[in-house]
Amino acid sequence: MDASPSRIELTPLNFLRRNAQALGQRPAVVHGERRFNYAELEERCNRLAGALRDHGIEKHDRVAILAPNIPALLEAHYGVPMAGGVLVAMNTRLSKRDIEHILKDSGSRLLLVDAQLKELVDEADTPDIETIVIEDTGQDDDPYEQLLAGASPDAPESWLKDETEPIAINYTSGTTGKPKGAIYTHRGAYLHAAGVAAEVGLGYDSVHLWTLPMFHCNGWCLTWGVTRAGGVHVCLRKVEPERIWDLFDAEGVTHYSGAPTIHMSIVNHDKAHRLDQHVTVPTGGSPPTPALLKKMGELNLHPIHLYGLTETYGPIMSCSWQPQWDEQDLEEKARLLSRQGHTYNGANLVRVVDDDMQDVQRDGKTVGEVVMRGNGVMIGYHNMKKETEEAFRGGWFHSGDLAVWHPDGYVELRDRSKDIIISGGENISSIEVEQAISEHPAVLEAAVVATPDDKWGERPKAFVELKSGQDVSEEDLIGFCRENLAKFKCPAQVEFCELPRTSTGKVQKYLLREKEWQGREKAIG
Amino acid sequence: MDASPSRIELTPLNFLRRNAQALGQRPAVVHGERRFNYAELEERCNRLAGALRDHGIEKHDRVAILAPNIPALLEAHYGVPMAGGVLVAMNTRLSKRDIEHILKDSGSRLLLVDAQLKELVDEADTPDIETIVIEDTGQDDDPYEQLLAGASPDAPESWLKDETEPIAINYTSGTTGKPKGAIYTHRGAYLHAAGVAAEVGLGYDSVHLWTLPMFHCNGWCLTWGVTRAGGVHVCLRKVEPERIWDLFDAEGVTHYSGAPTIHMSIVNHDKAHRLDQHVTVPTGGSPPTPALLKKMGELNLHPIHLYGLTETYGPIMSCSWQPQWDEQDLEEKARLLSRQGHTYNGANLVRVVDDDMQDVQRDGKTVGEVVMRGNGVMIGYHNMKKETEEAFRGGWFHSGDLAVWHPDGYVELRDRSKDIIISGGENISSIEVEQAISEHPAVLEAAVVATPDDKWGERPKAFVELKSGQDVSEEDLIGFCRENLAKFKCPAQVEFCELPRTSTGKVQKYLLREKEWQGREKAIG
Repeated sequence: MDASPSRIELTPLNFLRRNAQALGQRPAVVHGERRFNYAELEERCNRLAGALRDHGIEKHDRVAILAPNIPALLEAHYGVPMAGGVLVAMNTRLSKRDIEHILKDSGSRLLLVDAQLKELVDEADTPDIETIVIEDTGQDDDPYEQLLAGASPDAPESWLKDETEPIAINYTSGTTGKPKGAIYTHRGAYLHAAGVAAEVGLGYDSVHLWTLPMFHCNGWCLTWGVTRAGGVHVCLRKVEPERIWDLFDAEGVTHYSGAPTIHMSIVNHDKAHRLDQHVTVPTGGSPPTPALLKKMGELNLHPIHLYGLTETYGPIMSCSWQPQWDEQDLEEKARLLSRQGHTYNGANLVRVVDDDMQDVQRDGKTVGEVVMRGNGVMIGYHNMKKETEEAFRGGWFHSGDLAVWHPDGYVELRDRSKDIIISGGENISSIEVEQAISEHPAVLEAAVVATPDDKWGERPKAFVELKSGQDVSEEDLIGFCRENLAKFKCPAQVEFCELPRTSTGKVQKYLLREKEWQGREKAIG
Repeated sequence: MDASPSRIELTPLNFLRRNAQALGQRPAVVHGERRFNYAELEERCNRLAGALRDHGIEKHDRVAILAPNIPALLEAHYGVPMAGGVLVAMNTRLSKRDIEHILKDSGSRLLLVDAQLKELVDEADTPDIETIVIEDTGQDDDPYEQLLAGASPDAPESWLKDETEPIAINYTSGTTGKPKGAIYTHRGAYLHAAGVAAEVGLGYDSVHLWTLPMFHCNGWCLTWGVTRAGGVHVCLRKVEPERIWDLFDAEGVTHYSGAPTIHMSIVNHDKAHRLDQHVTVPTGGSPPTPALLKKMGELNLHPIHLYGLTETYGPIMSCSWQPQWDEQDLEEKARLLSRQGHTYNGANLVRVVDDDMQDVQRDGKTVGEVVMRGNGVMIGYHNMKKETEEAFRGGWFHSGDLAVWHPDGYVELRDRSKDIIISGGENISSIEVEQAISEHPAVLEAAVVATPDDKWGERPKAFVELKSGQDVSEEDLIGFCRENLAKFKCPAQVEFCELPRTSTGKVQKYLLREKEWQGREKAIG
């Protein structure tokens, strides 16, 4: 029987295949002096896939990789699934213990590891795994290059029968315990990549600088999304603002993605200058403050605030700009933009619901939980039936994030349940307090957590990182907050320090909470 | 059992649902003084769907519509499938006989018809069909508005169980015989809409002027694609260049689509002036000539050449611009752009194959047939099993179009087999001759067909439409061709006339051929 001419299984691998066939000479990857066009990128991915099969990878075998944003990591996003494998891209800032856990939990058969990160793996207790080192030189004696050179340049036969087969397992960042492996499918990755490309306006002329780790939800699916658009991937071994400014100019960067921490280091660098090109900046983690927004605008950097979780293929919502906001003042613009917004225009639904799974009022006041459904929701946690069922109760994925729904249809996070500070029976949003503190010109970033208090139960405590060369006293900062916040919401204490962060720049508030609650009863989420 | 949180069936209806929920206040439709935002558009479509159910429409019942590009036709693209029905949008320039055929062949249960086109239907022999008139006034006494007013504003329960269910039947234009009904699915329409939106760069700021008939392959799926992007649909009852220029300015149009005939009438109008905004012009039917390209560029109109067929949801290929072409001269630019290009970056494959279904050499010379596979290929012809099998032989859709494949991956049509003129054993491409004639400054458009010749078998004959107020003799025009064409390719005769066109502006060469071959043996494809 002839195959149906009316159906092809959805997979982001098709984006690369089509570009190689139709736009083979267009630039695909820039990495320092190394450049690949789409035909070359496809050939390298074919070779990686062939090599993996030569090494005995069978259908749905997991292949792990530990690397910064170098071509090998991008290539793994294509080569591993082309081989029929499932990609496990690991966070490069994980502890030895987490790496052990992920390699074992995922059952990875093979590990690709950047030479500079090899020590981390060597220390881990992972006896059964074949390891190939990436030196990232592109030279003939680089073991990764040798791997490719020894394999066929032709596309291996596809083993994909059904678009709902797994393509990747991405581990949660473990802010709330042991990392859990969220399983992504080919269909979900295809649709999510197309969704993010549309939402952030990627097209043929786009040049995406890889400031966002590709291991973070497959780079919010932009590893596939930039290819969907036919744009250019500019790799970046290390996130250094000076190098970023050089690349902005030299490569005509039109997009870069990441958390506000990255934007802050960029706008505050000596090389900062207004760019000729409009740069779109998909932004996650936390919303940009008014001060940051202003500075970015002056430099021609334009954030789009995105929101999502590892379980939703990274961001699944966007706070897209409404034309009528142009007339608002900066504070109001920042307030509007700080909201999490709405779903990409694809095949996902997002609601804010009460305990009975009913939509909350769209009044910007009633708090409910954000729940999601659609092709951009993982198919489950790897090896965790119970946790999957719990997360999927009622037929929706439960984000655990609390939010209000505004009359204009935009969702705005209040707090994760555990981020709410309950003081004398009043709920205090730690985000609200953080935003108030961040308005102070000396403050780089603030994290507010509950600290135990005998009288009030809990009181807000602020951990504050100052801008380099700036100074402010605890007293002055609390006084500053009182100008803008109800008194009971103002921090009872301020501690100046360097904030503990995940590899993606997200502040690890649970570490701060742990510190405050050592030996006390309050559990950590 | 709870429904899966990880899957939603793909349907373009989701684009409207999401916009209404998340971006309800954004403008959706402009029609003269009438304006609907996305919340209002959704409500109107809900009402249409509800009304259709009230009128007894059952799952997969066909609902036909005969209307110009007015809101009712756009709404039918959502309301009919929301009701569970299958949309049959008919060409407004069809003959009474074709309308009879389509209404009967499709088995349509209900017909929506624009008041100005009602006569066409009244004359047709269609006894069993309930008909509702659209007066397009938007007033309370408009029967279409009464239909909406009498129905529920709420979304009817969805009957869609599987994304591969039909959403529309689109009839071929019948250049080669009886119109055949190509069946589109929800999945195909979703993916194709997302594909065309990405390919032509539609986004939140886009304003699409409806110069292209929505009944033509559902407006190349832009009826859904503009909504996918969150852009604005500007309706247009009649394609009048003066009105188009007014709307360009008044509505800030960023996109309009159509065939070169439409572009010619636009660039040659008295009101033509350089626009402030960059206007992207998806162009089908035939490629723009160098002269047209130059004029469009001066006005800030930038064509993207698309190619496809009714069977492929309209265009499925695009000749996307390569940066290195910027440095070419205008002739070369036009030559490069005149090619049909490559597939959208989605889930379709296009090849050029020989008789054994093997890829032809990518040498820009070897001619083969263009064949397609993917989600953008119809699932078959309605009620035509044999024709479907014939079109799908070997597991690919056979376009019947002949083409070469260039080394850069771009496909270029030569001719439909029947468009090749065989003169003294030499093949002459009618397109090549047409392009040569079109270079003459007095020529608006030319169509070249074979005319019988006792000595050579066939000779090219040109039918030429001149620009208004322009003149050239047959002799001079043939002389002009000799400067640029091999002598045997030059037309043996030139006839000046108004060219017969389909409703979409495509020249009906088969009518010209019929005229030449009356009583002779050569069959018409």
